[in-house]
Amino acid sequence: MIYLDNSATTRPYPEALTAYTEVASKIWGNPSSLHSLGSQAARILEASRRQIAELLGKSAQEIFFTSGGTEGDNWVIKGVAFEKAPFGRHIIVSSIEHPAVKESALWLKGQGFEVDFAPVDQSGFVDVDRLAALIRPDTTLVSIMAVNNEIGSIQPIQAISELLADKPAISFHVDAVQAAAKIPRADYLTERVDFATFSSHKFHGLRGVGFVYIKAGKKITPLLTGGGQESDKRSTTENLAGIAATAKALRLSMENQAASASRTAKMKAVILEELAAYPDVTVFSGRENFAPHILTFGIRGVRGEVVVHAFEDYEIYISTTSACSSKAGKPAGTLIAMGIEKSLAQTAVRVSLDADNDMGQMEQFLTTFKIIYEKTRKVR
Amino acid sequence: MIYLDNSATTRPYPEALTAYTEVASKIWGNPSSLHSLGSQAARILEASRRQIAELLGKSAQEIFFTSGGTEGDNWVIKGVAFEKAPFGRHIIVSSIEHPAVKESALWLKGQGFEVDFAPVDQSGFVDVDRLAALIRPDTTLVSIMAVNNEIGSIQPIQAISELLADKPAISFHVDAVQAAAKIPRADYLTERVDFATFSSHKFHGLRGVGFVYIKAGKKITPLLTGGGQESDKRSTTENLAGIAATAKALRLSMENQAASASRTAKMKAVILEELAAYPDVTVFSGRENFAPHILTFGIRGVRGEVVVHAFEDYEIYISTTSACSSKAGKPAGTLIAMGIEKSLAQTAVRVSLDADNDMGQMEQFLTTFKIIYEKTRKVR
Repeated sequence: MIYLDNSATTRPYPEALTAYTEVASKIWGNPSSLHSLGSQAARILEASRRQIAELLGKSAQEIFFTSGGTEGDNWVIKGVAFEKAPFGRHIIVSSIEHPAVKESALWLKGQGFEVDFAPVDQSGFVDVDRLAALIRPDTTLVSIMAVNNEIGSIQPIQAISELLADKPAISFHVDAVQAAAKIPRADYLTERVDFATFSSHKFHGLRGVGFVYIKAGKKITPLLTGGGQESDKRSTTENLAGIAATAKALRLSMENQAASASRTAKMKAVILEELAAYPDVTVFSGRENFAPHILTFGIRGVRGEVVVHAFEDYEIYISTTSACSSKAGKPAGTLIAMGIEKSLAQTAVRVSLDADNDMGQMEQFLTTFKIIYEKTRKVR
Repeated sequence: MIYLDNSATTRPYPEALTAYTEVASKIWGNPSSLHSLGSQAARILEASRRQIAELLGKSAQEIFFTSGGTEGDNWVIKGVAFEKAPFGRHIIVSSIEHPAVKESALWLKGQGFEVDFAPVDQSGFVDVDRLAALIRPDTTLVSIMAVNNEIGSIQPIQAISELLADKPAISFHVDAVQAAAKIPRADYLTERVDFATFSSHKFHGLRGVGFVYIKAGKKITPLLTGGGQESDKRSTTENLAGIAATAKALRLSMENQAASASRTAKMKAVILEELAAYPDVTVFSGRENFAPHILTFGIRGVRGEVVVHAFEDYEIYISTTSACSSKAGKPAGTLIAMGIEKSLAQTAVRVSLDADNDMGQMEQFLTTFKIIYEKTRKVR
């Protein structure tokens, strides 16, 4: 089996799973409990928080655990909008956000907020000048993802940080789910970023855990109210085992970030080079300012799911862009936002690499692709 | 060590933890993925959902996974209130709800909704007649917990179901977090109940997982919007391993429910009988209509946390009522709602039993209690 769908989910690191089972079986006290089983659990909780904060160059008080990327995005988008509603009810998100951001913004629209979607250029990058033009006196939030999940374009977080430098009243959120441990930290977590969302299972941690970075002093309404955990910002009994596994996985994956990036970039380059030889292939992910591990392309006239299933027959697992939209059979929203025609957008498939993959697998992928390309010739 | 804090959290069943590690290490595909790793994961997901539904006598389409009890409560309270806002903006919750319900209701109040808190009698039971008097034409939701987490009183869910029988426009939510696998299903999940919240780690499952029962046809606004998982009602990549462990733990604990209840009731009876001999002890949990495993009492004049720490010296772990409020040092909200004076309420400690406990441990508990009672005599 060759797994090339690492943007959908990653295989948990054995070390992360070991951390999980160790904590779940031995340190199973409730961190809120007064007794020593509780304080023992609370110590592991705070050590994990500290470790994550250090890896991100932030302070422990700025890290808040969640159930994953979707909760993080929902919390920030809705929580900031509600918190700042007395000062303004206008928010801006990019037109290529993950549904967790996009649908949260649309939900707010139904509640009487105003939402603008910042357009992207034809290569899939937010146009900073056009974003600037959308900013109004009542804008309270700008939310832009760091690495697009469907084509891998790295958004201009630095340039947007500069744009927002003299607008401190606007909260700046970055969905870093596809960026963490994949590109250098400075490219998604600038000093200007107020909120950033992370998901554990995207960096070889476990499902059902994530965290949000909230810059000290930034206000947000909780999405989960209750027992007062996480400094009263996010209530619920802490998923301590999942949190310990997250700290472990983040450390391992961030330590390997540069090496992984260089390794996946080389594999991506080999595929890109070979694909150039096929006249009916459209490549949607370039090299410049694209994440090293994501490569989206299509065979003109052949729907993405046909290609996914064809690869599956050879036990090679790829995706029709995002996992979330794959079953709905919708074309990738990112490609549509880039102005690509629907019929072409529907051909897209995404290969998402990991340091676990190797050149032998790329060769197998390319050999298989050649067969699939030939086989689909008659339907094109 | 003697663990008597099972209402705060339970030790995971080894079988649940094994289910977790098996799935996390072997079936780690994203259930939303088109390829066979995805469909394999989706099959496990639906098998778990079916198993849970069968255990509850409901259909699989009525079970929606969450990150735990707090998310479930927040989702139902806020989701129903927002969904039904065009028809009315008045909700009723009891005055002894868990903070996850209470704080959600208070948050709604801040958003312009009207909230009434249904009073309880001096024993800790919702007064059904006084609840009836609070119902208005614009009431959209009534939320009453099944088993109170601080004293164990079993609320009159049957009687409230009858009260609401001819009021189909009102959604009825039951927080079943402390009830599931502890009391018979019929006592918390009547035909009239529209929504019910469950938390995995309260029945020997794992932290960070839970589910909500939503009666077919009942509408609710999602709390987590995004990729469209859980029939577009609760988006996020599914915590498959945690969900499989939940199904396993629920089956084991529900199969043992009657035996566990009879076992813990006997242990509770022994403690109750002995405590009656101490003139300065106030018992807050009775026998009639109280959960078999929860026993809350206090030594007059001695703050609860002093007693918790005194037991801790003997490696016996109990709690000052709920784990959530313990660190805040607040007296149990339930006792205050029952009309108990603050100074007496502050003496409360909670013993919460499990089938794992045994009579030998009860003897040790009582021997230790005698010592603590004598030691605290001088401060009383």
